Amino acid sequence: MQNVKVVIWGLGAMGSGMARMLLNKKGVDIVGAIDIGNKLGKSMYEVIGVERRGRAEVIVKTPEETITEKCADVCLCVTDSFTSKAFDKFKFVMENKINVVSSAEEMAYPMAQEPELSKKLDEIAKENGVSILGTGINPGLIMDLLVVIMTGCCESVDEITARRVNSLSPFGPTVMEEQGIGISLDEFNRKVETNSMSGHVGFPESISMIADAIGWKVDKVEQTMEPILTDVDRKSPYGFAKAGNVAGVAMKGFGYVDGKMKIEMDHPQQIEPEQVGVKTGDYVIIKGTPNINMVNSPEVPGGIGTIAMCVNMIPQVINSKPGLQTMISLPVPRAIMGDMRELIDPERKVVK
Amino acid sequence: MQNVKVVIWGLGAMGSGMARMLLNKKGVDIVGAIDIGNKLGKSMYEVIGVERRGRAEVIVKTPEETITEKCADVCLCVTDSFTSKAFDKFKFVMENKINVVSSAEEMAYPMAQEPELSKKLDEIAKENGVSILGTGINPGLIMDLLVVIMTGCCESVDEITARRVNSLSPFGPTVMEEQGIGISLDEFNRKVETNSMSGHVGFPESISMIADAIGWKVDKVEQTMEPILTDVDRKSPYGFAKAGNVAGVAMKGFGYVDGKMKIEMDHPQQIEPEQVGVKTGDYVIIKGTPNINMVNSPEVPGGIGTIAMCVNMIPQVINSKPGLQTMISLPVPRAIMGDMRELIDPERKVVK
Repeated sequence: MQNVKVVIWGLGAMGSGMARMLLNKKGVDIVGAIDIGNKLGKSMYEVIGVERRGRAEVIVKTPEETITEKCADVCLCVTDSFTSKAFDKFKFVMENKINVVSSAEEMAYPMAQEPELSKKLDEIAKENGVSILGTGINPGLIMDLLVVIMTGCCESVDEITARRVNSLSPFGPTVMEEQGIGISLDEFNRKVETNSMSGHVGFPESISMIADAIGWKVDKVEQTMEPILTDVDRKSPYGFAKAGNVAGVAMKGFGYVDGKMKIEMDHPQQIEPEQVGVKTGDYVIIKGTPNINMVNSPEVPGGIGTIAMCVNMIPQVINSKPGLQTMISLPVPRAIMGDMRELIDPERKVVK
Repeated sequence: MQNVKVVIWGLGAMGSGMARMLLNKKGVDIVGAIDIGNKLGKSMYEVIGVERRGRAEVIVKTPEETITEKCADVCLCVTDSFTSKAFDKFKFVMENKINVVSSAEEMAYPMAQEPELSKKLDEIAKENGVSILGTGINPGLIMDLLVVIMTGCCESVDEITARRVNSLSPFGPTVMEEQGIGISLDEFNRKVETNSMSGHVGFPESISMIADAIGWKVDKVEQTMEPILTDVDRKSPYGFAKAGNVAGVAMKGFGYVDGKMKIEMDHPQQIEPEQVGVKTGDYVIIKGTPNINMVNSPEVPGGIGTIAMCVNMIPQVINSKPGLQTMISLPVPRAIMGDMRELIDPERKVVK
């Protein structure tokens, strides 16, 4: 079997990480890289900071230059957070008979907020005999799929809390700005009012994935966003919050079933949580028969986790029956420590 | 769509628990119950201790009296721990075009110890257009599938430890006897020598499932069994261990990859662990990128967990393509809080 052929669309922090991860795996080649601006025309190896050595050159090009019919088995689309913004890219890739893995948070369960686009994506995928999946660490695993799997050992479930207490310290300037690190309370409130605080994208997706998986009908999803103000100066490699200012954002989400709050999402993100005695971790708490009280501490780092989830799901996406897939419609994610080709169904491979 | 139709083969503690769980679910009927001895001819409701109320009567009968072609969508086979002992039952059910969920520990990954029988089961399933799955709490979830899913957010994995520290106190006289609760050290050693200590069945299965999932080739599996001797008298509802005697069994398993121990299983089971300060829990510890350090405490109770896993996987087994399936080839388990029919692919349903 030929190696698994991958195109990466978007060489930011996540896409570059996926490229580096793929270069360490057996049975898989990166055959194309797409980006814009001053990355165009450069060697992908230069952009991702890896020596090319004996590998074939990959020049960063435009979509039209890179994507031709069946030129790859899968395209990792690592460009957007929102389904509507990425839709045309997905369409273009799938119409070239190539499977898609997307890191867009909304794509982890696009039925939640984009039911019409989800239908269209499903149709385009089926028409072209390919599949499309959105995944990542969260949404994608920690606050949804991991919850779902733990309900699997429950006779019944009454209430669910998914909590992710994580550190933003490893992240770069973009995330510092997006999460309002270092701004004053007034500025935070102004940003919330003008909808320019992005915060975490994914609660409606995680809540809907859990509810649909276990058969609850969610009639309302609410979310709140509060500043995490710091008592002491906090400094991370790319962030600084003076005492009194914003060191992070605490978001909560609530899913209501028959008028009752049944699914709670609790996700405080901040720089240097250890400095103020906050223990980071991923929590799954289920009230049911039996109760589940699970914690992974410290939390799975967001960057590595998202990179790994997108790459590790490649075989499941290639092997899947055509259509829009989700983490609850495919076999479980797993690390790929052997040859990726051994995981591929020959009948489903695009590049024969 | 007609309700999902289930036959239960074996009304011991596990099978009876599955029956009771199913009676609380929507869109599913128990249409047959198989057992032996003095249960034959009795009402299933009497055997499982539930009032029949308006439900159709189900009389406990022989396999031949119960199983006819396509009489059910799935048969829960809850009779054995070993594939070879249950093989003829699986064959009989599948030749009647009925899917199988088995609680036999070896069936959680039968390729590990019964590769020939696994091939035969796969062939029989495919010939008859049905599928067969082994599952349970452990093997089936805690020390294998849960490990696999957590490797899914890892770029690479170096070493794995799965630990389940559980209490045997909720179990009845059979488990007390099987696990040697209350016997002396001499008797324990004698039983180990004569191979009459059953201990935990499932390490080769869990190790192989993990290794196959992530692409490691296991060249050797070892396991050890040690008594847990108690310093103090311990008393559970069905067990008693005098100070100095056996209060449980500590089993370990080791999977070697390229001569190195890469997968460790650690599973001490005892009555009244809290009495001696042992905190029970399920642990997934992965050394890799990133590290995973997960615990669910207290542990998922073995009985409820196995009952729930077998029932909750019914839709995945019905919907699956024909053949021998495992927990890593099917979508993740999940609780069923709605109508079970909504989870069934009409094309795959047996009883139309």
